[in-house]
Amino acid sequence: MIRFFDIHLDTTKETDILDITAHAQEKVLQSGIDDGSMLLFISGSTAAVTTIEYESGAVDDLRKAIDRIAPRGIPYEHDKRWGDGNGYAHVRAALLGPSLTVPIHNKALLLGTWQQIVVLDFDNRPRRRKVVIQIMGE
Amino acid sequence: MIRFFDIHLDTTKETDILDITAHAQEKVLQSGIDDGSMLLFISGSTAAVTTIEYESGAVDDLRKAIDRIAPRGIPYEHDKRWGDGNGYAHVRAALLGPSLTVPIHNKALLLGTWQQIVVLDFDNRPRRRKVVIQIMGE
Amino acid sequence: MIRFFDIHLDTTKETDILDITAHAQEKVLQSGIDDGSMLLFISGSTAAVTTIEYESGAVDDLRKAIDRIAPRGIPYEHDKRWGDGNGYAHVRAALLGPSLTVPIHNKALLLGTWQQIVVLDFDNRPRRRKVVIQIMGE
Repeated sequence: MIRFFDIHLDTTKETDILDITAHAQEKVLQSGIDDGSMLLFISGSTAAVTTIEYESGAVDDLRKAIDRIAPRGIPYEHDKRWGDGNGYAHVRAALLGPSLTVPIHNKALLLGTWQQIVVLDFDNRPRRRKVVIQIMGE
Repeated sequence: MIRFFDIHLDTTKETDILDITAHAQEKVLQSGIDDGSMLLFISGSTAAVTTIEYESGAVDDLRKAIDRIAPRGIPYEHDKRWGDGNGYAHVRAALLGPSLTVPIHNKALLLGTWQQIVVLDFDNRPRRRKVVIQIMGE
Repeated sequence: MIRFFDIHLDTTKETDILDITAHAQEKVLQSGIDDGSMLLFISGSTAAVTTIEYESGAVDDLRKAIDRIAPRGIPYEHDKRWGDGNGYAHVRAALLGPSLTVPIHNKALLLGTWQQIVVLDFDNRPRRRKVVIQIMGE
């Protein structure tokens, strides 16, 4: 059995890191699927999906680490050619990756107690984001 | 057909990188599934899963690269708030990601010859880790 | 329903970043599967899969970011032991990861408009690469 859902998120021009765990768990219950897996996929080239303990300290730390890896203030070829100033966002998204798969057992996502699913939007302007959720199972 | 298995691992307070390929292949045989895919997911916010050639040189090199990306010796907001000193581990885990999916064909994981599945435990205290293995297929 | 396909790629000794989106979409049509997901997996320990906007600026920017994270010019333990000079490639591949999963709906990969699927070959010699594509669905 395969079920599709969308989650819509409104983001700002900063690096937003948004907890979507409650939305995702809700979709498991709506799907009627007891056991299987959830694929979360962000359609777009300036955002990513991962997991983290969603407390503001760890989230800040992640934001800083990403800023060290692909700083906003250095020159990007993408920006020279297209002038949209979000070259850093493309690099960050490619490094972090657009997809995450989480197992489902007895209608529950098998996340750790302190492990939340987050969407990271790196773009330099507010976006309306769509996360595709696909649940496969029985 | 969907089958679940757990792998349990005992880790130390250092960045442990553990080869679980043989365990994973064993679960394929136990599952009775010939073709499909294996999802490996680590429940917890201070560990990750990836693949590498599991020889001590490459494993050391990976450990050093991770230490450059999210060093243990810099200040973390998470540590200021919670005092558990593992802020670096949360950042590393979020960057590497908790899940990996490997295709299965004719009862074999389609890994390269020099490609092993590894769990990385970043936490600063010994942990008993559970890796959830889910095999889907026919 | 599960279908397997291979994509073969010839790479150079530099960090090649190759767009395989058209190949991947073609396999969806060949599979006869309308809804489901595509797992892309690179068998090998010196290559990876992700998505990016495939324009030469962003691709160059990604190449430079990867070079900052795991530079080619620093000493690697792997090279000291095995002398093949591709220690940097093993580290890069482990950090980026060998697998990507993309949802399929109505025979289409649910990628963003500017989001392409890329294989990154980090090895220091030309390789003939195989990307395993597995489509599961109905």
